Amino acid sequence: MKIQAVKGTRDFYPPQMVVRNFIIDGWKAASLRNGFEEYDGPIFEYLKMFQIKSGDEIAEQLFNFTDRGGRALAIRPEITPTLARMVNQKISALPRPIKWFSVPRLCRAERPQKGRLREFFQWNIDIIGVDDILADAEIIFTTIDYLRSLGLTPKNIKAKISSRKLLAAFLINIGITDKDLESLYPVLDKKARLPAEAFDEMLAKVVTDAKTAAMVKAFMEIDKPSNITSKLLRLINVSDEAAEAEKELEDLLELLESMGIGDYCEFDPGIVRGLAYYTGIVFEVHDIVGEFRAVCGGGRFDNLLKDFGGPSIPATGMGMGDCVLEILLREKGLLKNKPSTRSLDYFVAYADKALLTEAIKITANLRKAGLATDFSYKAGSLKKQLKEASLANSTRCIIVGREYENGELVVKDMATGKQETILEDKFWAELENRKGAL
Amino acid sequence: MKIQAVKGTRDFYPPQMVVRNFIIDGWKAASLRNGFEEYDGPIFEYLKMFQIKSGDEIAEQLFNFTDRGGRALAIRPEITPTLARMVNQKISALPRPIKWFSVPRLCRAERPQKGRLREFFQWNIDIIGVDDILADAEIIFTTIDYLRSLGLTPKNIKAKISSRKLLAAFLINIGITDKDLESLYPVLDKKARLPAEAFDEMLAKVVTDAKTAAMVKAFMEIDKPSNITSKLLRLINVSDEAAEAEKELEDLLELLESMGIGDYCEFDPGIVRGLAYYTGIVFEVHDIVGEFRAVCGGGRFDNLLKDFGGPSIPATGMGMGDCVLEILLREKGLLKNKPSTRSLDYFVAYADKALLTEAIKITANLRKAGLATDFSYKAGSLKKQLKEASLANSTRCIIVGREYENGELVVKDMATGKQETILEDKFWAELENRKGAL
Repeated sequence: MKIQAVKGTRDFYPPQMVVRNFIIDGWKAASLRNGFEEYDGPIFEYLKMFQIKSGDEIAEQLFNFTDRGGRALAIRPEITPTLARMVNQKISALPRPIKWFSVPRLCRAERPQKGRLREFFQWNIDIIGVDDILADAEIIFTTIDYLRSLGLTPKNIKAKISSRKLLAAFLINIGITDKDLESLYPVLDKKARLPAEAFDEMLAKVVTDAKTAAMVKAFMEIDKPSNITSKLLRLINVSDEAAEAEKELEDLLELLESMGIGDYCEFDPGIVRGLAYYTGIVFEVHDIVGEFRAVCGGGRFDNLLKDFGGPSIPATGMGMGDCVLEILLREKGLLKNKPSTRSLDYFVAYADKALLTEAIKITANLRKAGLATDFSYKAGSLKKQLKEASLANSTRCIIVGREYENGELVVKDMATGKQETILEDKFWAELENRKGAL
Repeated sequence: MKIQAVKGTRDFYPPQMVVRNFIIDGWKAASLRNGFEEYDGPIFEYLKMFQIKSGDEIAEQLFNFTDRGGRALAIRPEITPTLARMVNQKISALPRPIKWFSVPRLCRAERPQKGRLREFFQWNIDIIGVDDILADAEIIFTTIDYLRSLGLTPKNIKAKISSRKLLAAFLINIGITDKDLESLYPVLDKKARLPAEAFDEMLAKVVTDAKTAAMVKAFMEIDKPSNITSKLLRLINVSDEAAEAEKELEDLLELLESMGIGDYCEFDPGIVRGLAYYTGIVFEVHDIVGEFRAVCGGGRFDNLLKDFGGPSIPATGMGMGDCVLEILLREKGLLKNKPSTRSLDYFVAYADKALLTEAIKITANLRKAGLATDFSYKAGSLKKQLKEASLANSTRCIIVGREYENGELVVKDMATGKQETILEDKFWAELENRKGAL
């Protein structure tokens, strides 16, 4: 019976696995050097947990099932609810600030399309327990620190930053009700991806008054944070909240400048993020060429832990999926220098089958010493075995040949082709010495 | 709303995550140094795929569900079916031998108990396309190479090895039908874990003739492979298959001796493995003290690829879960030297809030240079900040204090407590030099 993989999932053969590891290892390294600790939760949780943050309709985007005990469960579509649950469960025992990262495997029952699969990996970094804008700066810095380490420059990507607090203060100032805010956010979030008329039409459905709608659009076109107050002044009376939010934005941009990533960052009031749960700074990193394609997004969500039954503790974070990132890296030619699927320290070749046992002994000893070593299962010609060594990206090749009668091995440097004959005892002694020197 | 994790799953807080990473990183390192390449498949597949190897009843042990397209899917309970599918799909393009490993996350809808959870990780190594006993030796060597690297000695663990080919030849010789073999294997597999009477009772249900049952028991008590033929001779006429299988076992044990792990290995005809799909060498690694507890198991399964709609290609492999292993390592005190959840190269402390921006700049520059660095979000006393540095296992601490007026930093070695005052420019120049030297 021939069976295929399910549509929207990926098989990671060794060449694809190397790319996945390259991305995930990079996420881990960037997290650790920025002072984050790793956590993870289960791949499935109670279905109702995923509905707290995203509403009942999320069930349709989930792979959900019932176990034999009748529990309604689902494969996780995101890790933030798990984070909230885990932090709440141990809140009094956890030293703060909580600076955690994770690289979960996630599944969403979506229609597969370019850059959006039904199974993917996502880098998450979160700082919990810090009210200060410093934490938002840390999240954005860590994100850019990773992308920069891949070779992406300010010419390739930009972190576009805005403030939900500012947007909310402004919208309430111009008469939008609290109730309408939630339906307005997803509309504003789509602005950059929609033709102007389509956006106007969607906006008009939520904001029926034309003058108010024009003010909303004017706000979204402000180009500098220092222009916010003056521009706002022309539109409305600036509230304390709006002025405070503006100050916060300015401080943030200054901090990012100090951190040396000012040229990667810009204010963009068009950044809204669809979800209702953001409460402060929001940002997305965009591919500059790729038509508004977001590589990642995040922001402050000070009410999340409370929504999950815990205390009121501030939090800010970021999530980045592997699919869009991989497309971007491929387009920019930044996946070319990735490590190969195999690389050995030694390949042990043997001149004829009678020497196989010796070759195996040497292989086993090298591996025991922690060195990546392989040998051929078939006693092919030395030429064939050397080719196998080369295919396996071996640094050196040991040849067990007729010199072995005198207790000697031939060690060949695969890059230079240089060969050296050495007494086996001496070879092991030198290896031991090198280990001691490290 | 307070929500718990589902029973039988684990939350990996940073201290637990470190242990999981310690185990999985060790699996990966052992695989790579033994010449295996990494692969992975999706977390869910078509339900029917998992029924090929294990029968329809496996559905009860699976978390299965139907997607919106009406497809019957399941979370993977093992990765071998995925391996068979992936290899079959690209069989003509893959260079052989295929020597692959994976560390999949797996789920089984079992009743949780000690060492057996509903979600776990499993190390899998497989060699496909090699008929030779050498491949079986490689699988056992790689398994022991990993366990040995953790500090487990032949006094802690043993690889108990037998041959399904030998067992099958013997059972057929004494008159067991092919049909009865499949129901007999799971019974024999349980022998070591059952009281003698309970085993006798189970055996009698499949092998009704008492004399035949006695022969089966006599076989399972043979203690050395070299005794097989002579012991068998007393019982029956040795078939060619049985003699061949015995020779193979003896060759394997000799190979393992050459590889330097002879003292970790022993012949044990009581090792059967329950599943019908094994065709040759089978083995389990047991904790010697822990009452027959198997740490891992594996063997040869030459028909698997064919059963999955592919060509007839020999294969041999091993699977090791993380739960029993972790219990074993904990019991033996081998998890004590694991890395801590955080460790920094530098912690940047600042004497008062006015110096925060400088501290941030220094932090950002160190991180950019690839060094794990953190700082305090609160301008607490220097004493408090140094304590934070120590909690984060920082190697060094940089103090931005009043010396900074003269452009100087204080660098404190956290292990020795020694402090050095250095011009900031010189600090960066030296860092650059050290990077160049590496």
